[in-house]
Amino acid sequence: MKNIPYRINLSEEYIPKQWYNVRADMKEKPEPLLNPETMKPITKPEELGGIFCLELARQELDDTTAFIDIPEEIREYYRTCRPAPLIRAYNLERVLGTPAKIYYKFEGNNTSGSHKLNSAVAQAYYAKKQGITRLTTETGAGQWGTALSMACAYFGIDLTVFMVKGSFTQKPFRRNIIETFGAKVVPSPSDLTEVGRKILAEMPETSGSLGCAISEAVETAVNTENCRYVLGSVLNQVMLHQSIIGIEAKTAMELYDEYPDIIIGCAGGGSNLGGLISPFMRDKLKGEKSPYFIAVEPASCPSLSRGSYAYDFCDTGHVTPLAKMYTLGSKFIPSANHAGGLRYHGMSPTVSKLYHDGFLDEARSYKQTEVFEAAEIFAKAEGILPAPESSHAIKAAIDEALKCKEAGEDKTILFGLTGTGYFDMKAYDSFNKGTMEDNIPDDSELKIYESKLPRI
Amino acid sequence: MKNIPYRINLSEEYIPKQWYNVRADMKEKPEPLLNPETMKPITKPEELGGIFCLELARQELDDTTAFIDIPEEIREYYRTCRPAPLIRAYNLERVLGTPAKIYYKFEGNNTSGSHKLNSAVAQAYYAKKQGITRLTTETGAGQWGTALSMACAYFGIDLTVFMVKGSFTQKPFRRNIIETFGAKVVPSPSDLTEVGRKILAEMPETSGSLGCAISEAVETAVNTENCRYVLGSVLNQVMLHQSIIGIEAKTAMELYDEYPDIIIGCAGGGSNLGGLISPFMRDKLKGEKSPYFIAVEPASCPSLSRGSYAYDFCDTGHVTPLAKMYTLGSKFIPSANHAGGLRYHGMSPTVSKLYHDGFLDEARSYKQTEVFEAAEIFAKAEGILPAPESSHAIKAAIDEALKCKEAGEDKTILFGLTGTGYFDMKAYDSFNKGTMEDNIPDDSELKIYESKLPRI
Repeated sequence: MKNIPYRINLSEEYIPKQWYNVRADMKEKPEPLLNPETMKPITKPEELGGIFCLELARQELDDTTAFIDIPEEIREYYRTCRPAPLIRAYNLERVLGTPAKIYYKFEGNNTSGSHKLNSAVAQAYYAKKQGITRLTTETGAGQWGTALSMACAYFGIDLTVFMVKGSFTQKPFRRNIIETFGAKVVPSPSDLTEVGRKILAEMPETSGSLGCAISEAVETAVNTENCRYVLGSVLNQVMLHQSIIGIEAKTAMELYDEYPDIIIGCAGGGSNLGGLISPFMRDKLKGEKSPYFIAVEPASCPSLSRGSYAYDFCDTGHVTPLAKMYTLGSKFIPSANHAGGLRYHGMSPTVSKLYHDGFLDEARSYKQTEVFEAAEIFAKAEGILPAPESSHAIKAAIDEALKCKEAGEDKTILFGLTGTGYFDMKAYDSFNKGTMEDNIPDDSELKIYESKLPRI
Repeated sequence: MKNIPYRINLSEEYIPKQWYNVRADMKEKPEPLLNPETMKPITKPEELGGIFCLELARQELDDTTAFIDIPEEIREYYRTCRPAPLIRAYNLERVLGTPAKIYYKFEGNNTSGSHKLNSAVAQAYYAKKQGITRLTTETGAGQWGTALSMACAYFGIDLTVFMVKGSFTQKPFRRNIIETFGAKVVPSPSDLTEVGRKILAEMPETSGSLGCAISEAVETAVNTENCRYVLGSVLNQVMLHQSIIGIEAKTAMELYDEYPDIIIGCAGGGSNLGGLISPFMRDKLKGEKSPYFIAVEPASCPSLSRGSYAYDFCDTGHVTPLAKMYTLGSKFIPSANHAGGLRYHGMSPTVSKLYHDGFLDEARSYKQTEVFEAAEIFAKAEGILPAPESSHAIKAAIDEALKCKEAGEDKTILFGLTGTGYFDMKAYDSFNKGTMEDNIPDDSELKIYESKLPRI
């Protein structure tokens, strides 16, 4: 048994040279995107070329190429913060008194504070290469907006970020940091777009939603010269870029003769979960290994655990293509007192398909108060203040480790610590003061949204 | 020439086994501390034992032992976040177009967000070992308070933090994070101490100062059972613990056959600067090398560059020992619009002595607007949002790199990037909006404080 350090910091030669596209190894592929005007499958990258950069549109539709080269310019940027450390949670294990071995892949050691930078850099690079000079996007909790503003500052691209109004108001510092990197931040819904004006007319008091901000960003991109839209989660291209998380984690574990029995990721749009599990899922799809995969959601936005597997729009304003995915309905908006991200109504079509077909073993949801309780146990033991999103995975990892303690099993658990919580102190404060509330949608509410899903 | 990576991440075997005590190699030692009641030199650790833990008091007075073993329990904690990376600023070099090679030792990749954790862990450990159950301290910008709260959570020690009232009000999230790690935060001056009540009576509207918060923390420690006081900068013991910064940086550079021509650190109380330069200063004291050392201060609190080298109290309330140091006077309080830390009236006695004797080559000060300008250039190039404190060193490094460009010299520059600016977004926002002001004390103001220095 090799002596395993606290932090496995691979040297930069270990930065992967290729992303891994899990769809290539799926016998049953995810269903195709549908054109929102014709309701017919989108099969050619050019059909998405008005919204996305062409190379990214190609990646979006490619379900046959297993390994895709990472351009050297992107690897160059990755060198500034990657490989991200894989950490053995010795202190957490000790505090829990568990025989389980807990590892986490920590993606928060960069200024964006999360894994989002992995795809932001890739998307900004392809835009630059295509001669695009402006990008638009949306951001909820603010991690994606920050990541993209950093990537755009690096490549010299103008950026407009539609920020969910609730976050814009509650997280002024997130806005400030995005502005510091030179991007423009607009609270969404705004009166800058047709879809924003329409939503404001219908719901003048709304605190906004990711789905709504996506609609505004897409509309702006389509109507602005030399401009494209980029998205930080849900899409196949994003899951592809995020596969670097899992590839690095797997390599680091292999160097110490380790392989996870249980792999846990928090799931909002599915980019982190999808990226983390991808290379391990390959082993499972090939029948070589059978790790147990757990997706963890907030109880206030449980798309995988309580949604329908159906075609739905990716945005509230219905300007995007439709995807077959687990969805709560494109008009669903999680309770305003839900802290942090993981507030998207749908789920990555690829993650959805893997769950539907039983390769992704389990989806579970937790209330946010129990998630913050786990976050504080973790912070005190490990010395890292986790993001609320990541803390969903922490809660599941702690629960699994305690099960191991009860059963006397020394399973190996790997989870994704996607980011840090430095911009979420308001939520921590309300938890510490005992004023944080849990809001779980009831079945009748979900039924109403379900009844409004497009009939396809 | 070896191929130098962006980030030199040493493995945990490289965590130093000993701290380096630069005073042991100084022919002329810093002047002794004076007992505030007798005004006589303090020579025995026991004389400080009512305020400090005994082992820390020993370290404070020891100016003969060059290398002091780091206890295994402290190295165990260091493993969770050390060795800290040494980063080659390739991107900043490119943006500046300089032939200089720029390196920075990055101490911000931990939740405390700065180098302060290095000494916090050591001090909490020695307290625990002595059976102390409570600690008090002060914090200004909040980095030290956060670091100590993390260390106390790890070792299970109660902590009360007196937080400079201005920061307490302006940085609620810093307070929240300290509370999340289980410590109690009190705005200073408070009515919990005699000295606090006195200061409040004299200046009811004061936003507080570090010197005042120190007085309150010391008074509380002395009057509380089984309680000691700990300090995050200025002291010899802190500089000793922080020598780990310089030792790691030197080791990492040596592995790539590098040695700095210029070494730059920001200076408030001197802990980071002193720690970074210590092992390089050893080479200079021994006549083996002659790197050029630059201390960088804010123009609003220029103790080294404009203060007097004199005996002064370490706190506003005059309850602490006196130290011979560069000081602006113990009642000096920097302008309320000064952002970030580096707001202490004095300077580490050891750093002061090295500067006075010419081993520390230069002290310079910058206005905060030019510091934030440098911070943003750095952030956009390097992808790390720096703390305002660290940005003073960045500004000097950029200036030196531009001098190299003009002269066509490829000097090697090393600076300390002490931390991240995630809790300083208000200051960044005011800089971005153009509302940030520079406040530089005029000579007549400094003369008044100088005239009040103790006559010794």
